Amino acid sequence: MTAVVRRDGERDEVAVEEPLEIRVDGHALTITMRTPGHDEELALGFLHGEGLIDGPHAAGPTEDLAANVVDVQGPLLHDPGTRRFYTTSSCGVCGKGSLEQVAVQAPPLARGPVVARDLLAALPERLRQPAFVRTGGMHATGLFSCEGEALIVREDVGRHNAMDKVIGRALLDGLLPLRRHVLCVSGRLSFELVQKAAVAGAPILVGVGAPTSLAVALAADRGMTLAGFARGTSVNVYSGDERMSAA
Amino acid sequence: MTAVVRRDGERDEVAVEEPLEIRVDGHALTITMRTPGHDEELALGFLHGEGLIDGPHAAGPTEDLAANVVDVQGPLLHDPGTRRFYTTSSCGVCGKGSLEQVAVQAPPLARGPVVARDLLAALPERLRQPAFVRTGGMHATGLFSCEGEALIVREDVGRHNAMDKVIGRALLDGLLPLRRHVLCVSGRLSFELVQKAAVAGAPILVGVGAPTSLAVALAADRGMTLAGFARGTSVNVYSGDERMSAA
Repeated sequence: MTAVVRRDGERDEVAVEEPLEIRVDGHALTITMRTPGHDEELALGFLHGEGLIDGPHAAGPTEDLAANVVDVQGPLLHDPGTRRFYTTSSCGVCGKGSLEQVAVQAPPLARGPVVARDLLAALPERLRQPAFVRTGGMHATGLFSCEGEALIVREDVGRHNAMDKVIGRALLDGLLPLRRHVLCVSGRLSFELVQKAAVAGAPILVGVGAPTSLAVALAADRGMTLAGFARGTSVNVYSGDERMSAA
Repeated sequence: MTAVVRRDGERDEVAVEEPLEIRVDGHALTITMRTPGHDEELALGFLHGEGLIDGPHAAGPTEDLAANVVDVQGPLLHDPGTRRFYTTSSCGVCGKGSLEQVAVQAPPLARGPVVARDLLAALPERLRQPAFVRTGGMHATGLFSCEGEALIVREDVGRHNAMDKVIGRALLDGLLPLRRHVLCVSGRLSFELVQKAAVAGAPILVGVGAPTSLAVALAADRGMTLAGFARGTSVNVYSGDERMSAA
């Protein structure tokens, strides 16, 4: 989703960024800066990543359709209690009141599948990003089959929103926990993205950009295959290379 | 700050990402995923951007130096109350409990200065990023004079952390509100970065990447000069072009 602005007397397209408030049964839980569209998926994917839901829930806009609010029907798996979630446009350590709470609630990952190195390296090219081409300002996340087929692709100004939208859609489609899938992101690999992928059960996560130290540590701890700098025919594997075949 | 990991039997450097808990007078206020280093600046810059301090405060590690905690000495300008801040590695809509609270507390911006377009376009090249060269995973923010001299440059895995560190340092150096300075960022221009720059009084913000729609709207509303896609000799100006001279 793009908007037209004027600069230097010319027209230019920029990525749309607006706040979204996520409510559960009418109560405000979090606010995120996101690109409008697929808001229900975003809300469900976010709640799943926080361990608050493990299946589809009804979700939709409020009566004031212009209000940038999505309301999710409960109940949640546990009470978020006094924690408040504040998500942002690019990552997602949210609702953790202390260092001790930065923890992962994730299912055991599938031992398989095995994916060809060349396929992994080429996946980012299959992330169709029409909005990025126009604006230069969008992140994308894609859910792929092990044969490289794009199943779900979402774009957003925030990298963690794009991931949440994909996982929310996968949740609605009954695909969680992911077992024979690859998640691919257009940017760098932060701790939060690895955390979201782990909670969704994704055995393989690949990105165009660099991983951080904590992303590598978490992936290794979970037994997830984490690969970065995927461009053309080249890719760096940081953990879980038993899921990679040579060709 | 980088760490060495092993991949494919070789050694590779990645950007360090660790959680930091920011406390005020011993009470936990927020947690952010950041690259260690300049933590006091990060804490002060964050609090300034949230309108909670307007001058230097004492800040330092707790007695357990390994705990990834920085404690800031109060008092704050107002009670954060029941709001909890949850910052993240790439942006900073934090502690806003509802859409209505996504607002800006910022001083009027200086009408001047006027900066040459060529200088603005070339500023990103002056953002020394040694860690990025090694890891591909760091953001940088720089505070420059109107003559293009780099005064403060900070790197971090999170774009908003790099901005907070620069503003925190500027606060300690008595440079706020910024009047005859340019802030330059290595990445895209989100709403949150414009907000932080506005609260610091920065009249000019330039970035290597694309702005979002809300970033442009906020800059225009504040009268800030916002420029994106600054590369070599080219730069796009989205608002406040009265501060740009042709050459």
